[in-house]
Amino acid sequence: MTEITTRAERRKLATRQALVRAGQQLIAEGRTDVPVLTITQVADVGMGSFYNHFQTKDELYRAAVDEALELQGLVLDAWTRDLDDPAEAFIRSFRMVGRLHRLQPRLSRVLLSRGPALAMSDHGLAPRARRDLEHARDAGRFRFPDLESVLVIVAGATLMLGQAIHDRPDQDDAEMVDRVAEDLLRLLGLSDDEAAELAHQLLPPIEPAFGD
Amino acid sequence: MTEITTRAERRKLATRQALVRAGQQLIAEGRTDVPVLTITQVADVGMGSFYNHFQTKDELYRAAVDEALELQGLVLDAWTRDLDDPAEAFIRSFRMVGRLHRLQPRLSRVLLSRGPALAMSDHGLAPRARRDLEHARDAGRFRFPDLESVLVIVAGATLMLGQAIHDRPDQDDAEMVDRVAEDLLRLLGLSDDEAAELAHQLLPPIEPAFGD
Repeated sequence: MTEITTRAERRKLATRQALVRAGQQLIAEGRTDVPVLTITQVADVGMGSFYNHFQTKDELYRAAVDEALELQGLVLDAWTRDLDDPAEAFIRSFRMVGRLHRLQPRLSRVLLSRGPALAMSDHGLAPRARRDLEHARDAGRFRFPDLESVLVIVAGATLMLGQAIHDRPDQDDAEMVDRVAEDLLRLLGLSDDEAAELAHQLLPPIEPAFGD
Repeated sequence: MTEITTRAERRKLATRQALVRAGQQLIAEGRTDVPVLTITQVADVGMGSFYNHFQTKDELYRAAVDEALELQGLVLDAWTRDLDDPAEAFIRSFRMVGRLHRLQPRLSRVLLSRGPALAMSDHGLAPRARRDLEHARDAGRFRFPDLESVLVIVAGATLMLGQAIHDRPDQDDAEMVDRVAEDLLRLLGLSDDEAAELAHQLLPPIEPAFGD
């Protein structure tokens, strides 16, 4: 009995995950305006199963973005766990997220599709950037007059950088990211030399976590 | 004969302008996915006249965005005509565009709808920002290591600021804009005092040009 329930539950969860992945794929391809039938075909699940999990397409697409953000947040936490310095945590997160656009194009396009609204989200990079910037200022590592203004600039740079990396496939993405990182560190009150050094520290290896 | 031709031409142009305005309104309202019939109803023109001007809805929406950008460019040129200093022209343009989001919400939402792609456009703020930043660096007014990185940050800040101004209707938009402007000037190599002064200079009056 328990075994059967568990198996049924597992199958249900697998169907939901297939639908969410299909939603992410369609967002990444800019094809959200398709019938539910197409979504279930992309997910390779039965047409009827859609409504066991989602009432509308919008609900699926929201789940697709939310789960991508949740995953991004967990990955960021793992990447910065070894750092005590909030300034280092901030810039390492920025530089690693910048490298995800080419490594995980589906995740990248799902997140970019939400555009500016993402900067106001309680998940993913935005709340972590806010926390790290506050701590780094309190610790005297960063120096800037207004947190909200700096967050607008950092969020905008994050978004626009992702777009530029997709638009310029011939350019070295790591170089593009680290140059913007260096600019942001100068904006945050570091000297030219400090900014150059911190923006080019060795990064830990990036483990793909999204199955692109 | 000439008179009649002119009158017919004028009527045709008026129909096109009504369609473009309707396109801009629908973009601003996030309602682009409507039938052609709805577009002609919003424009208050005959259903058949749509296809005298545009082959597809996409073509209309592209024209709607392009014309908004063209207008923004002309307005920016007029606003900065009296300035010799490219640094002043750059920051005045940024500050005045920032004030348009509340003054001309339809123009603002049309432009924000294009999102990051706008930063690569040959019309509007982007090419003027590039030109002014280059000149200001050559003149020794600004100091930054890499133009492309700075443009990514400026474009991202412009976009995200527009979004933040719409999302926070209770906040003073001019204050929000000028604080971000001050941050950007520090990023561009100005001292704290120089940045604060230049970001708070008196602006010329803003004449609405978009008929919001």
